[in-house]
Amino acid sequence: MERISADEAEDIFATAAELAEAAREATLLHFRSGGLTADNKEVERFDPVTVADRLSETRMREILARRRPADGVLGEEFGPVAGTSGLTWVLDPIDGTRGYLSGTPTWGVLISVRDAAGPVYGVIDQPYIRERFEGGLGRALVTGPSGVAPLRCRAARPLGEAILFSTFPEVGTPEEGAAFRRVAGRAKLVRYGTDCYAYALVAAGMIDLVIEAGLQAYDVQAPIAVIEAAGGIMTDWQGRPCHDGGRVLAAANAEIHAEALALLNG
Amino acid sequence: MERISADEAEDIFATAAELAEAAREATLLHFRSGGLTADNKEVERFDPVTVADRLSETRMREILARRRPADGVLGEEFGPVAGTSGLTWVLDPIDGTRGYLSGTPTWGVLISVRDAAGPVYGVIDQPYIRERFEGGLGRALVTGPSGVAPLRCRAARPLGEAILFSTFPEVGTPEEGAAFRRVAGRAKLVRYGTDCYAYALVAAGMIDLVIEAGLQAYDVQAPIAVIEAAGGIMTDWQGRPCHDGGRVLAAANAEIHAEALALLNG
Repeated sequence: MERISADEAEDIFATAAELAEAAREATLLHFRSGGLTADNKEVERFDPVTVADRLSETRMREILARRRPADGVLGEEFGPVAGTSGLTWVLDPIDGTRGYLSGTPTWGVLISVRDAAGPVYGVIDQPYIRERFEGGLGRALVTGPSGVAPLRCRAARPLGEAILFSTFPEVGTPEEGAAFRRVAGRAKLVRYGTDCYAYALVAAGMIDLVIEAGLQAYDVQAPIAVIEAAGGIMTDWQGRPCHDGGRVLAAANAEIHAEALALLNG
Repeated sequence: MERISADEAEDIFATAAELAEAAREATLLHFRSGGLTADNKEVERFDPVTVADRLSETRMREILARRRPADGVLGEEFGPVAGTSGLTWVLDPIDGTRGYLSGTPTWGVLISVRDAAGPVYGVIDQPYIRERFEGGLGRALVTGPSGVAPLRCRAARPLGEAILFSTFPEVGTPEEGAAFRRVAGRAKLVRYGTDCYAYALVAAGMIDLVIEAGLQAYDVQAPIAVIEAAGGIMTDWQGRPCHDGGRVLAAANAEIHAEALALLNG
């Protein structure tokens, strides 16, 4: 990890807060408005990109260009910006665009900072609830409608007592779906439909596992930082780093991570 | 419908608001706390009943006994109270206890008033978001973190352009599941995991359909009142009243209701 001083960490916190506030404003301009338009980036898969998505990322990039011009930027909507500092901001202006279009309060804005080794700090922000989960550089906290609280993952319990989340019941390819169902079939409770909010719930100590496939780097980096700061583990389905996305297993602790990993590969 | 005067309607609004505030306080006392306990009402199906569920209903019943002693009460947790006024309050102190236990913000408190013909007014309240959807007796509005807005269901569009929600992918019995999938297979987007919040999203004009099975009277009466006040339709899978629960089809308009009904029975 790059050496990041206390002053540098404070500037990263302040910059991330400014980004999150700008993204809240941009995304809420259009959330639940009647006239939403959606493009399809891919023909086969329904993957809307809204005006809000682009506005949100544009505003965040403007702030980074002003406040942190030496850092790189990787975002969902526009091309990468190379930096010279060794730090890169990774942005997903609306994670869960289908949830956003449907009016649910579980989509989010993902903001993170990474160095060569991986994410060092991340934010999962839910603009409508006005709720922000932060982790890394010594922070692990949620600020929301009930105030500020520390984030700490749940203690270990067997899979038969555990709660598993995933955004869609059809997880990835048929083989990936079969692997998911080997875990899901043994969990106490399986819930769907939460987009990035599921990762926040792992960090908040409410659920034990999130399993997904087909993710992008900008989908996972903020969740990795938040969950690791809260004491959890997030890897791919072989237990390796998942900074670049793909198949993801987020776990509240090492014990449930190992139990799920064995079933995914069993 | 009983004749309800303007004064009576105002007292019903004020009583419902007091109930919803008491339920918010009771449910948030334990929401996302570490020490939640859960009983299982049934052995086979995971259906936790929390301390918060019972506290929430107890507090609402105390308010009704004081403010509206002539009205009946039907609640999820405790026995029915007979009334003499012709009006009955129907209460679900936590709809979506599995969502509540998981920390999601899509469970809710359901409060409604019915006469012999069915629900006349209903409230879907999401305590954590501080968001309240109301419908009936001339009201159709949401009050939440973005202020107050009218509720109005979406205009008609074909099922191929529509959004369908249900709480679980396994909807009811195998036959009920097959009927659900006939509709789901033709919808543009299907999402899960929202409990009563899905009905609020129909009323808010964000989604087109909710299809569920195995519901109770206290699960459906507030959603019926809110959705009908917003211009939508909520029936069973034969197009008949669904005040007593069972199989439910909530639709934003008559056209999509008819299209879904034909497929459920096709």
